[in-house]
Amino acid sequence: MKKFLILIMGLLVLSAWKNKSLEQKTAGILQTDYTRYVNPFIGTSKMGHTYPGATAPFGMVQVSPQTNFVPMFKADGSYNPETYEYCAGYQYRDSTIIGFAHTNFSGTGHSDLGDFLMMPTTGDLVLEPLKTANGGKGFYSAFSHNNEEASPGYYKVLLDDYGITAELTASDRVGFHRYTFPDSDSAHIILDMVYNVYHYKNKNVWTFIRVENDSLITGYRQTKGWARTRKVFFAMQFSKPFKSYGHKKYDSIIYDGFYRHFDQRENFPEMAGKNIRAYFNFNTREGEQIKVKMALSSVSTEGALKNLEAEIPHWDFEKTKTETREKWNKELSKIEVETMTEADKITFYTALYHTLLSPIIYEDVDGRYRGLDQNIHTSDGFTNYTIFSLWDTYRALHPLFNIIQPRRNNDMIKSMLAHYDQSVHHMLPVWSHYANENWCMIGYHAVSVIADAMACNVGDFEQKHALQAAISTANVGYFDGLGDYIKYHYVPDDQSHSSVSKTLELAYDDWCIAQMAKRLGDKKTEKEFLERSQYYHNVFDPKTGFMRPKLSDGTFRKDFDPLDTHGQGFIEGNAWNYGLYVPQNIDELIRLMGGKEHFSRHLDSLFTMELADKYFEKTEDITRDGIIGNYVHGNEPGQHIPYLYNWAGKPYKTQKRVRMIMETMYGPSVDGLCGNDDTGQMSAWYIFSALGFYPVTPGSGYYALGSPLVKEAVIHLENGKTLHIIAKNQSKENVYVNRVILNGKVLQGFLLSYRDIINGGEIVFEMSNKPR
Amino acid sequence: MKKFLILIMGLLVLSAWKNKSLEQKTAGILQTDYTRYVNPFIGTSKMGHTYPGATAPFGMVQVSPQTNFVPMFKADGSYNPETYEYCAGYQYRDSTIIGFAHTNFSGTGHSDLGDFLMMPTTGDLVLEPLKTANGGKGFYSAFSHNNEEASPGYYKVLLDDYGITAELTASDRVGFHRYTFPDSDSAHIILDMVYNVYHYKNKNVWTFIRVENDSLITGYRQTKGWARTRKVFFAMQFSKPFKSYGHKKYDSIIYDGFYRHFDQRENFPEMAGKNIRAYFNFNTREGEQIKVKMALSSVSTEGALKNLEAEIPHWDFEKTKTETREKWNKELSKIEVETMTEADKITFYTALYHTLLSPIIYEDVDGRYRGLDQNIHTSDGFTNYTIFSLWDTYRALHPLFNIIQPRRNNDMIKSMLAHYDQSVHHMLPVWSHYANENWCMIGYHAVSVIADAMACNVGDFEQKHALQAAISTANVGYFDGLGDYIKYHYVPDDQSHSSVSKTLELAYDDWCIAQMAKRLGDKKTEKEFLERSQYYHNVFDPKTGFMRPKLSDGTFRKDFDPLDTHGQGFIEGNAWNYGLYVPQNIDELIRLMGGKEHFSRHLDSLFTMELADKYFEKTEDITRDGIIGNYVHGNEPGQHIPYLYNWAGKPYKTQKRVRMIMETMYGPSVDGLCGNDDTGQMSAWYIFSALGFYPVTPGSGYYALGSPLVKEAVIHLENGKTLHIIAKNQSKENVYVNRVILNGKVLQGFLLSYRDIINGGEIVFEMSNKPR
Repeated sequence: MKKFLILIMGLLVLSAWKNKSLEQKTAGILQTDYTRYVNPFIGTSKMGHTYPGATAPFGMVQVSPQTNFVPMFKADGSYNPETYEYCAGYQYRDSTIIGFAHTNFSGTGHSDLGDFLMMPTTGDLVLEPLKTANGGKGFYSAFSHNNEEASPGYYKVLLDDYGITAELTASDRVGFHRYTFPDSDSAHIILDMVYNVYHYKNKNVWTFIRVENDSLITGYRQTKGWARTRKVFFAMQFSKPFKSYGHKKYDSIIYDGFYRHFDQRENFPEMAGKNIRAYFNFNTREGEQIKVKMALSSVSTEGALKNLEAEIPHWDFEKTKTETREKWNKELSKIEVETMTEADKITFYTALYHTLLSPIIYEDVDGRYRGLDQNIHTSDGFTNYTIFSLWDTYRALHPLFNIIQPRRNNDMIKSMLAHYDQSVHHMLPVWSHYANENWCMIGYHAVSVIADAMACNVGDFEQKHALQAAISTANVGYFDGLGDYIKYHYVPDDQSHSSVSKTLELAYDDWCIAQMAKRLGDKKTEKEFLERSQYYHNVFDPKTGFMRPKLSDGTFRKDFDPLDTHGQGFIEGNAWNYGLYVPQNIDELIRLMGGKEHFSRHLDSLFTMELADKYFEKTEDITRDGIIGNYVHGNEPGQHIPYLYNWAGKPYKTQKRVRMIMETMYGPSVDGLCGNDDTGQMSAWYIFSALGFYPVTPGSGYYALGSPLVKEAVIHLENGKTLHIIAKNQSKENVYVNRVILNGKVLQGFLLSYRDIINGGEIVFEMSNKPR
Repeated sequence: MKKFLILIMGLLVLSAWKNKSLEQKTAGILQTDYTRYVNPFIGTSKMGHTYPGATAPFGMVQVSPQTNFVPMFKADGSYNPETYEYCAGYQYRDSTIIGFAHTNFSGTGHSDLGDFLMMPTTGDLVLEPLKTANGGKGFYSAFSHNNEEASPGYYKVLLDDYGITAELTASDRVGFHRYTFPDSDSAHIILDMVYNVYHYKNKNVWTFIRVENDSLITGYRQTKGWARTRKVFFAMQFSKPFKSYGHKKYDSIIYDGFYRHFDQRENFPEMAGKNIRAYFNFNTREGEQIKVKMALSSVSTEGALKNLEAEIPHWDFEKTKTETREKWNKELSKIEVETMTEADKITFYTALYHTLLSPIIYEDVDGRYRGLDQNIHTSDGFTNYTIFSLWDTYRALHPLFNIIQPRRNNDMIKSMLAHYDQSVHHMLPVWSHYANENWCMIGYHAVSVIADAMACNVGDFEQKHALQAAISTANVGYFDGLGDYIKYHYVPDDQSHSSVSKTLELAYDDWCIAQMAKRLGDKKTEKEFLERSQYYHNVFDPKTGFMRPKLSDGTFRKDFDPLDTHGQGFIEGNAWNYGLYVPQNIDELIRLMGGKEHFSRHLDSLFTMELADKYFEKTEDITRDGIIGNYVHGNEPGQHIPYLYNWAGKPYKTQKRVRMIMETMYGPSVDGLCGNDDTGQMSAWYIFSALGFYPVTPGSGYYALGSPLVKEAVIHLENGKTLHIIAKNQSKENVYVNRVILNGKVLQGFLLSYRDIINGGEIVFEMSNKPR
């Protein structure tokens, strides 16, 4: 309800402004504060897996409230499904906060992180988050969304149990806390090193804390989770000396050479072990503010200290908050839009915000970072990034970066190449984070990101080296079905899970490699990988008309249900939807499936069929909200599908469908994401679609037209040019595009090229309530 | 028996040479191979805790056979006393070898290390050292001392079970293995990352292995043991590509993101977990040699690779072996001695060898090392060392270094100052190893090492900074009774264990600080610490005539047994022996104890009393071999005692007693050390005593005279000067020194100064069978 009020108030404030034309507004671009259209709570309910906390654009620190402490495994060892809801540590329905962690993924469908949980409390010292050993209340606090607010780079909440107001902001590498305390002779700030997102016993490998002086702490934590060997270092500074401090260990200590010589529990400046919670005690006057800066590093505590001193050498919370808001506004204002409703504007800018949260910067201010080989490297000529959820993000997020963040995308590709250089497998990243490869999902989609950048002439990365990396990656026989794929020309279902999905994704990836080779004049490689890119044929069953699991003996699997998403050779999809994934050769797919009419009917059925409960229940990651018939927008493999009507000669169906998806699958509410945002992929789909086009085939340099949601958009390109998008006669009913006028000429066909965009100019969509 | 034969053979070989005079021999110093007098097996039986493996002088790598795998705790959680025998991994009585580890302490009385156990085998692959899960034989092999040999920098053994001859040598940072295999199509080299000296469940924090290519492996291990946060990195290179490889995990894997994507067991190049054993498979022809180089680093695998490439860029095993032998000879030949028997020469040079094993170099070839703060530092203007067993080594080892290794001792002091700079406690090292402080034993004896260097004008370390470090260390109130010592002017027995030992050692340490301050003209500090150096008075009980535990209320503890070594306020000693520890003021101690005659009789009783079994049994660390009456030579606190007769006006009793100790407590056999060598302290006592003097009061710049065991000695000093020591009329019976002639003048009194030594010249001891 609170959010709704904020929304209404925002609408009133904006109403005066909205009557200006976009041209008038963009004249004074830096005066426009786009951050006020961002609602970081969008996606924090249900499956969005976003977080509401404070972070800078692509910032290394994401300091955000954590609302629960969920064990990943139940007492009997089985997976606890509740874990999944807390991928980003926060669920909107919760009414308690256990503290503020400094690392969080945005929108992932699996998780890790949650480093260095900090919690201010008053009264009796309690060191356990939920409940004490003897059943007492933990250090969590109740809170109300009425007393909570969030905007880009800022978060605030009143912790009811302690009367403490907690505010958070962040620079790139430093989280900045401001706690306003009541009068207390027993105020505490807890540093919980036990807490993890996706927590399980023994996830902590080692933790280490040093109390350097009366207000400076350093330390690190190593965990083994999704990232198998993950180390995060910190330096933590208080604005006021603590009066005393201590820690508690949560391990049965088998052996400790210290015990004879010290009482380590209190005021002993060196703490180490697997599971530790430390506390720092203060006296506070009513309204006294204690500020805490927490700098991170992947390298060392020395690196964290350098980051701390370089980024926030002062105690001016407002200054950091303002600087970070300005950074956000700079990024958000790269796309200035006028929308039909203010709600759409909030949805749009929050989506844009979500696309700018990851990958994250992953290096210290001096350019040093921990590499995949666990050695310390220095980024030379680029900024190193991590968190590459590539099976998701190659589809629309990196293509979006090629338009609005080409410099960063170039750095990201260089980071991927550094990953390759450091990889003992000689592979590009698959799903990597924090100097680790977690191998999540299938395929090697880094090649798509690279091929798309090459197609768009983005960046100055070494293209030959990139091709070499792609070829090497595509030949690691022991990787996840790849050896069999090379041997059989498809992934045999009796050898590998998700066999059809793998075959389809690998064939597309191989087409990307062929494009890279073509561009570099390497005809042999181009030919080889073009051949491989045809392997999707080998899993198409003409009898059923579906992509279908094939066994190593060359026969299709008998037991086959094209509607089932489990055990049918697909992952996060079924033959009906994932089977439509041949982006490199859509015309041929249509031919295989019986021609345009037949194909179009297949799409119609997909969107309109009633999916039986037994199928729905098995569909991962989504609620009924995220599904239209058997089309699953909450997962990625089908996100290109609405655009496929174009190829079937029915562009109006694309137009209607994408507008319908934008209206129903996105919105300005806490549950405004129908599935995991997947580090920005879901949001990037929205940004593209709202602008009227979508990269169905990354690596081609072309975008399929859809139907814009915006009335007007101005894209400020890094080359200094401007692309103006105008939807003439735009309205909620006028979802059809009768003509597209590109710089005064009618655009033929349904594709827009990267050149059309990057050269700037004007695209006019002539909207109508009837298909042309 | 074998050793005895070697000894006899050695004697025959040497007999021709021995008739030359020392002067003749020293003329051709570099021709003389002193390494052949070193028997690395001395001390490997019983309590010596030395290792027979290969290492360079002060080398970072100690590659040595491990003969057992002993759990530190029994199933019921209690300490397993057998652990203690394996402080250096090897016990001479054992008939099996489980492999070759690359890090070992020499002579310690507690332990850690044992990193990277390597074992060549043939036949069925077995990955467990002692027995397999189903009770089968482990990968250990039987061996015989008949097929074993060791010399400085070289070790060789035949592994009977496999017919493999294993040879080891080492450069400073690289262990070099040469395995001669039989014909086999199933030869293996096992890399056991589970094995630890002082092993217990969960001691391994994390291990990480990368198979970089078909013959290069990198990785690291972190353990929590005596060193709480210890990391060792490695790079391991085979002379021949392996045909296949794999690993086994010994953890219940709760969660592992890799499992869906790979079969990690075989030929998967990335292994990580807490407990891993890896193997590498080969085909071998009869007599084929596979060589393996294992480089260590405290910094990173990158550092280990640099060390590997810098130190042993070739595959010439003999070359490294020869180079290291030459390094040893260079160090050993700094003291050239002529002895009465060849056995004495073996004892002497093996003792000298043992003094040159630690502290060890602890930095990479580029000067980078892991500091106490776990950050990576670069040694600027010094070589960084670790393994400081200071409660032991301040007594004679570091004083010996001031004579024969002043440059290294300077580096060691700089390493201690770096430790101080990196210490969150702002303390100098107590017992430190591998970027960790283990706090073992009592006092802060780094100050003695520094004060002694200053008294001897050794080094160019920053003396003011050193004094500041000493003062800071001496004021850390929470350290092990120190706050109470400062408050009460003694350590109250009801507040702290080992209260009297602590009071005595701290008082001596404080005297050292006063000497440093005096030298730097800091009168205030000198006065303050001279006062503290008198605190030993406060635990002397005139009624009983003993140092005695005192309570915080100022009364002596009622229950008091001066012969008991447990719970009587002493550690590794009792009131009878440890109570004589006032090296800074021996005259006053004698006065307190009733004058010279009374004191002399106390010493007589000490050496002659019959210690009841009940007392002996409680005495730590020693066998009956290491005890004379109630004098315990196997532990350190009494090692100055035989020299105290000098102060009581009975120098002849010192002379007789030290000769007797040299003859009975040391010898050229595997059990030739009567107690732990304690990283060279026991051996340093022997070197000093054999030369005729001993540093009773390190920090004073003076040495008390004893009775030399050698006939002649030439000490080659680093300043280019030479000290010639001649024992005239030396014989086994002539243990008494009638006169000492220093550079032609009769020496008055019983003290020799550092200047007398460092300026070179000649000291003639006139020996006799009667006291003068």
